[in-house]
Amino acid sequence: MFERLTHSIQEHISITEAEQDFCKTLFLPKKLRKKQYLLQEGDVCKYIVFVEKGLLRSYTIDNKGNEHILQFAMEGWWSADLYSFLTNEISSYHIEALEDCELLMITKTSWDLLLERVPVLERYFRVLLQNNLIATQRRLMGELSETAEEKYLKLVSAYPDIMQRVPQHMIASYLGITRETLSRIRSQLAMKK
Amino acid sequence: MFERLTHSIQEHISITEAEQDFCKTLFLPKKLRKKQYLLQEGDVCKYIVFVEKGLLRSYTIDNKGNEHILQFAMEGWWSADLYSFLTNEISSYHIEALEDCELLMITKTSWDLLLERVPVLERYFRVLLQNNLIATQRRLMGELSETAEEKYLKLVSAYPDIMQRVPQHMIASYLGITRETLSRIRSQLAMKK
Repeated sequence: MFERLTHSIQEHISITEAEQDFCKTLFLPKKLRKKQYLLQEGDVCKYIVFVEKGLLRSYTIDNKGNEHILQFAMEGWWSADLYSFLTNEISSYHIEALEDCELLMITKTSWDLLLERVPVLERYFRVLLQNNLIATQRRLMGELSETAEEKYLKLVSAYPDIMQRVPQHMIASYLGITRETLSRIRSQLAMKK
Repeated sequence: MFERLTHSIQEHISITEAEQDFCKTLFLPKKLRKKQYLLQEGDVCKYIVFVEKGLLRSYTIDNKGNEHILQFAMEGWWSADLYSFLTNEISSYHIEALEDCELLMITKTSWDLLLERVPVLERYFRVLLQNNLIATQRRLMGELSETAEEKYLKLVSAYPDIMQRVPQHMIASYLGITRETLSRIRSQLAMKK
C-alpha cells in the first residue's frame, strides 16, 4: 500500500526505516470507486492525499456552470485544496475519482506532527512544491500567451499518460477551450502526420 | 541590508545567531537602478534574489511582441526564474527593476550549501513555495473562469501596495487584458462609487 509513497520520498531524500514506519502510522488508506468524490465544494479539505493507484481530478464550477480543471493526479502524485487544508476554510474545489483509486490520506494535525518528527520531509515537500509551482507558472503563462493548439501540444508532450486516461471533454476543460475547438485541433494535427 | 530577509525568515522559523551569520556570508548585495535588468531572456538565471528595497517584475515576450507578466516582487519577496535557476538552462524571462532596488542574491551552489548547513530553512522555503503555489493556482483558475473586472478587483484587493507603484499598462499586461479594457473597467468602477 505504501510502495509508491515510499518510492516518491526516496527519490528525493533519505529516511531511516524507523522514520518510514512512523510515517506509515499517520496515513489513512482510502479506496474510492470511479465517480466518487474525495472533496466537494463547500466542505473543508481535511486531508492531503497521495495517489497509490488510480486518477483524481480537482476542479471548480463557475457561476455559469462551466467546469475548470486545476489538476489531474495519477499514481505518485499528491492532491488537495492546499488553501482549505492549511486554513480550515471551506473549499471551492471538487476532487473526484476518474478511476477506481487507492489513496493515502493525512490530516493537517498528522502532517504537522510528521514534519516535526521527521524534519527531513520538509525537503521532500519543498522540492515537490517547487516543481508544482514551476509547472503551474508555465501553465499560467501559457494561458496568457499561447494558442489552443500550442497549449494542447505542450500538454500531450508533458503528460502523455494522462492524455490516454482522461476523456476528451475534460482535456478541453483543462485547456480552457471548447470540445469543438479541441476536436478541430486534433483533426488538423492528424492530417499533418 | 539583511533586515527584511532576517524578518522574513523569523516570521516562519527560528534560527540561531550563528546560522543567521552563516546565511549572511552566502548572499551578494546588489543595487539595481530603475529600468536595469537582473535577467534577460536567453541568459541562465544564476541567482534567486530577495528584495530588500524596490520593486521587480518578471515577464516574457511572446512571438507577437506582447509582454506577459509573471510576477511583481516588492520588499520582502523573492524573485527568480526557478526552472532556469535549478536546471541551469536558459531562461525565457526578463527580470527588470521598476524602481531603484537593493537586492540580496544567492547562487545555486550557495543555496544548496545553505540548505545543507541550515536545514531548518527547508521549512522556510517550503512555506513560501506553498503560499506562492496557492496564489499562482488562484490566478490560473481566475484566468480560466473570471471576467476582466473580477480579475482586476481581486488584484486590487490582494495587492493594494503594488497597484500604487506599477504603471497601468503593466497592470493590464499582468491581467492579460488590453489597456483600453483596463481603462474602461476603472471608469465604470469609479462611476459606481
